[in-house]
Amino acid sequence: MPKEIERKFLVNPELLPVLENPHVIRQGYIPTQGTATVRIRISNNKAFLTLKGRATGLTRSEFEYPVPLEDAEKMLQELCVPPLIEKKRYLILYRGHTWELDLFEGDNAGLIVAEIELDDENEAFEKPPWVSQEVSFDPRYRNANLITHPYSRW
Amino acid sequence: MPKEIERKFLVNPELLPVLENPHVIRQGYIPTQGTATVRIRISNNKAFLTLKGRATGLTRSEFEYPVPLEDAEKMLQELCVPPLIEKKRYLILYRGHTWELDLFEGDNAGLIVAEIELDDENEAFEKPPWVSQEVSFDPRYRNANLITHPYSRW
Repeated sequence: MPKEIERKFLVNPELLPVLENPHVIRQGYIPTQGTATVRIRISNNKAFLTLKGRATGLTRSEFEYPVPLEDAEKMLQELCVPPLIEKKRYLILYRGHTWELDLFEGDNAGLIVAEIELDDENEAFEKPPWVSQEVSFDPRYRNANLITHPYSRW
Repeated sequence: MPKEIERKFLVNPELLPVLENPHVIRQGYIPTQGTATVRIRISNNKAFLTLKGRATGLTRSEFEYPVPLEDAEKMLQELCVPPLIEKKRYLILYRGHTWELDLFEGDNAGLIVAEIELDDENEAFEKPPWVSQEVSFDPRYRNANLITHPYSRW
């Protein structure tokens, strides 16, 4: 079964390397009752529909499908709750693992988080020097929650 | 934009023709807050993920994508609210239009509805003799509602 195992951390921006080649991401969520999330994401010019189950520990089931860009634009506009999440994502390779560094914009401007996807909850990895406090279990940092409670209003 | 324009009717089962070649359908819904529906359907051995917007009159926006059967089974089990909708669907051609006749099973056994998809809300069509009262605007007959309020409990 497709699974997502992810850990999420805050970032010390002063220690970041030079950032290049961002994925420009806009994403929205269908308002659900919380047992599953339904996300529409446009990353650069590619679009994806992603369903995720409830997390057990660090693990969630995840089902992701490419969709036509035009459909995604319509779904973001018609089916999602505004505002959308807007962020720039940078992929940073560090000692064998790829980190996803998200610099949020709009109502979440100023928020920077780094995520690492693992194959196993107990998989070891080395933290880059610019990674600080872990927030994997803090629901405020979930993207779906950043729509209703953006960083600017914390 | 993809649109679904649909009218739904009750059926007089005594007047139905002989029914052949059913599509055996199982479908479930991600619990949403009602502004959009997210459906996972397995019809015979094909699976689809379908998002629909809120209806305006008879019209809803609809986005449908084929998904792997194995994914659909997992999504039905992990992301949807039980019980699933189970029904047999028969396609009946009548005077240039194809009708979808749904014979529900499980908690909705006994319920039979016929649907016709139109290209335009004002499109004319002839009603077959076995079609009776229109229920297009009765929310009880929406499949998503038949999960929480099945026909056996009306």
